[in-house]
This record gives sequence, C-alpha cells and structure tokens, in this order.
Amino acid sequence: MIKKLAITGGTHGNELTGVYLVKKWKKNPKLIERSSFETVTELMNKQAIKEVRRYVDQDLNRSFSLSDLSNDELENHEAKLAKELNEKLGKKGSDEVKVDFIVDLHTTTANMGLSIVVSNESATTWRSIAYLCEMEPELKVYKWKGDIENAFVDSMAPHGFAIEVGAVPQGVLRADLFLKTEALVYHLLDYVEKENSAKPLELPHELEVYEHEVLVDYPRDEVGDIVAMVHKERQDQDFTTIKQGDPLFLTLDNETIVYEGEPRYTLFVNEAAYYEKGFAMTLAQKIRVTIENRK
Amino acid sequence: MIKKLAITGGTHGNELTGVYLVKKWKKNPKLIERSSFETVTELMNKQAIKEVRRYVDQDLNRSFSLSDLSNDELENHEAKLAKELNEKLGKKGSDEVKVDFIVDLHTTTANMGLSIVVSNESATTWRSIAYLCEMEPELKVYKWKGDIENAFVDSMAPHGFAIEVGAVPQGVLRADLFLKTEALVYHLLDYVEKENSAKPLELPHELEVYEHEVLVDYPRDEVGDIVAMVHKERQDQDFTTIKQGDPLFLTLDNETIVYEGEPRYTLFVNEAAYYEKGFAMTLAQKIRVTIENRK
Repeated sequence: MIKKLAITGGTHGNELTGVYLVKKWKKNPKLIERSSFETVTELMNKQAIKEVRRYVDQDLNRSFSLSDLSNDELENHEAKLAKELNEKLGKKGSDEVKVDFIVDLHTTTANMGLSIVVSNESATTWRSIAYLCEMEPELKVYKWKGDIENAFVDSMAPHGFAIEVGAVPQGVLRADLFLKTEALVYHLLDYVEKENSAKPLELPHELEVYEHEVLVDYPRDEVGDIVAMVHKERQDQDFTTIKQGDPLFLTLDNETIVYEGEPRYTLFVNEAAYYEKGFAMTLAQKIRVTIENRK
Repeated sequence: MIKKLAITGGTHGNELTGVYLVKKWKKNPKLIERSSFETVTELMNKQAIKEVRRYVDQDLNRSFSLSDLSNDELENHEAKLAKELNEKLGKKGSDEVKVDFIVDLHTTTANMGLSIVVSNESATTWRSIAYLCEMEPELKVYKWKGDIENAFVDSMAPHGFAIEVGAVPQGVLRADLFLKTEALVYHLLDYVEKENSAKPLELPHELEVYEHEVLVDYPRDEVGDIVAMVHKERQDQDFTTIKQGDPLFLTLDNETIVYEGEPRYTLFVNEAAYYEKGFAMTLAQKIRVTIENRK
C-alpha cells in the first residue's frame, strides 16, 4: 500500500520542466489528488533554481548516500540541503518512512526522448514502470548501476525513479516535453490508485530495459580539457546501436575516432552536465526484467 | 584596408563552439594566417568559461557602451574585463584603432541555423556579409537595432558582427555547428584577403536581411515569473512568418495564446539566456540592404 507519493522538481536548478510542473501543481493541487493516497510536491534546490544552475556547490542528485547524510562535517549548500530534504521525504538511514514513492523530474540535453532512469530494485518500482510502458509505448527504461552507493534523490524512499526527457537545453522550457512529462506523472498516479485497490492490476511478466554497462569519456588532453566532440553521426543517437568501426568522436583537428568494441546501445549522448563528470555517453545492453506479481 | 582582424570566442562562457574554435586556432595559428593582414584570437571571459556560465556578474556582450567603458565606478567582473579587452581590441572611445574587424562567435538554443547578428552600419561590414551570403546560401542575417547604445563586443572595432549558430544547448559542443562556424570564419578571412587586394571584389548590390522590430516577452505573473511556454507550433520556427491568430504561447494551464498583430518573422525563439532579459522571441521584417561599392 502506497500512502504517500512525492513529486520532486528542480533537483537541478536549470532543468525547468520539473520546476514548472511542481509550480503548476502547487497552484492547482487538485490535479494530483487521488482518493487512496496523498501526493506531495517539492521544489528541491531553490537557490540553484533562482540562479538557473544545476547546483550551487555539488550535484544534489548525488548527495543522498547514507555516508554523506550521516556526515556532520559536510557543510556546503547541497550537503546541508540533502539532510533537510531527507528529514522531510526520507528518512533514509532510519526505520521511519515519510514517503513511500518518489518520482524525481529531470531533463537532459541528450536526445533521450521520454525515459526513466531507475536504480531501485523494488517490485513496486518495477510494476509501476511496467504500467507506464503500457500507457506510453514510446517510454524507454534505463537501468542504472553505479559503482558507488545509490545517492539519487529517489533513493530516499522505498520505491521510485527519475523521469528524464530530452533533448531540451538547460534553462529552457519546451512545451512538447512539458506535456509528455505531465502526462506520464498522471499515469503514475493512476497506477498507484489502481495498485492500492483490492483488484489486482494485470501487468506484463517481462519488460525490455537498457541496462547500464560503462561510461565513455571524451578524448582529453594532459590537463583534462576535451580535444574531440561527439561525431555528428553519433549525435542525437540515443537508444540506438553502435558497433565496431562506427564514427564515435571527431577531434578538433577533424579526425574521426571510431568505436572499438562489442555492439551496444548509446545513451545520454552529449549531455551538457556530464562534460565535468567525465563522460560523453554511456553504453548499455538490452535485457529483459521480470515483473513480479503483487505480494 | 584591413590590417588586423580579431576572432573572439567565449564572450559567453557556456557557448562552447567559440571557446573551442579559439582554442583550436591558438594551437594551430597557421589555419587563420593570411598574407595581407594579421588575425588574432581572444578567449574573452575566462572565468565564465571555467564556470561554464554565460557570465559571472553581468553580460559581457552588453558591457561595451562608451558610457560604461569610461565609468570608473563600475567594478564588477565583466565591467572591469570589458575595459581590459577594450585596451587590447578597441580602443572604442579613442582615435586609436587596435583592431579593424571583430567577429564574435556565439551559439544559441534557438533554431537560428547559421546566422549573423549585425548592428554595425559600415560599408566594409556589409560587404563582408554579402560575400559570406554568397559563399553560404543557408546563412541568414539579422540586423539588430537596440534602444540603447551599441554595447556588443564587436562594437569595439570599426567593422564587425557576431556569428550565431543553433540550436545547441548551453555547455554543449555540436560537431555539425562547430564545422559550419569554422567554415564561415575561413570565408571571412578569404573576404578580407580579397578585399585587401588591388582587384575589386564583385558583390551583389542588395542583400535580403531580417530587420529587428520588437521583443515579445513571455506572459508573466505578478512577481515576474513566466506562466506560459512558447507554443509547440512556434518552437524551432526561427526565420518563419507568424500571422494574426497563430498559436504563440501555451500557458502552464494548457491554454493557447495566439499572436495578435501584423505578419512578421520570429527569431531567437525560446533562447535560454533571454528568459532573464525578458523576451521569448523577437519579431523582424524582411528588408533589402544596399551593398556599397568599395571606396
């Protein structure tokens, strides 16, 4: 039973779709009211939103690891903010559950279309995603698997994921992607309402998913500055296959660097925020995830 | 006779095309060497480039008015930087001419394609643009006319303009637009080389240009926050006509606001940096500019 769901926007201050959807719903909360559970909204990083920047001191969407949340020495803007938000929407690291499900709204400069980034393994999370894929056939699912502890916003709750839509520049509101994100959230609320009812929800037994494998960085010089761009044949080619010999990068001196490796799917191709994180795209493999029956 | 031309990039720290073209040419200056004149390059706002932000304190590309350049009380980052750059590339406000021609490299999140923004009226400026339009038929020209004194980077020199390419998000390098910008600069260098020679350059007598008329702001609430987005039928429609009754904005509550006015062309539709400046797009009329013979 899901009693409380949180819709979070503005985790990154320059991703305006989530910011303005949350503003819309704060003004018209009836739009997200359902009978069997409570929905709350949260404008996450107000200072970054004001400055139209991803973050002030550090990426808020990497600030929710248990170790950081319990580290009293971390004092910067987002480290402190993460602790405050965890009191409100967590509490990760305690037995208390303030919110059962978090959907965190993001945009990307990559041509990811309407997609979900999920790192939660809970049956409810995956059932909700299976439902959304039925409702929105264009929706794609990226199963993220980091090297370190999950520190995303949605990790504060037992269930949840992030919605990523693109391509949209930072600091820009695109009506088409705003409407698609809004519709997807309404489908999610419908899912919870149905799942909370006595009648079991019929869902597919399996789901096609892109499973994260590895990050691919830009070619860089000795001081870490990039010396090549994503090749124009790879630009905008998210969720498409790349194989041995395909153009991958174009150096600033007009030399093509080709892909060397097994066939994979490319995702998050040329996302602005990932230049500093050290990757030009990620590689993924298509897998099938089993959707469990409701317990 | 043009003795010295400056190519300036990174006037806005999050417009990477100019930043990386200047870096490329600083590494390989032979690419921009020509026999009859000197070409210099300048990475304009290094602090903003480092922070991948448009500016630190104020827009550098609005900081070159004569009144600001001579105002000793202006002490912020870009105000001081503008004075330093004017010593190097100006000197606007004096009889000295350090550089004859400035081409300032920009990108935009609007779908402006390959375009020039010009506010200089000099015959040489317009002859160079006429040449570029012959070389690159897709090139479009936007004749800007502000209410206040011209404070753009290129106003430091007797001749010059800005190149604007898009759509590209802030903080992103797109190979296709990088190559187009690079090619356009090489055409400009060819123009100067030809114009400097004894043989008169044959140019068309007239040029089709989009002349700035007015800014159109987003609908806003009482505290100035936007309450509508560019309508999806207008998104990406730069250099196309808008007429009475065409969808213009979509409010956050899904109401369409239509255009009321005479037929015009829309430009800079949904540029990220202009949310804070207070416009969603500009309106322009097509005019024909006379290209003067060489004096």
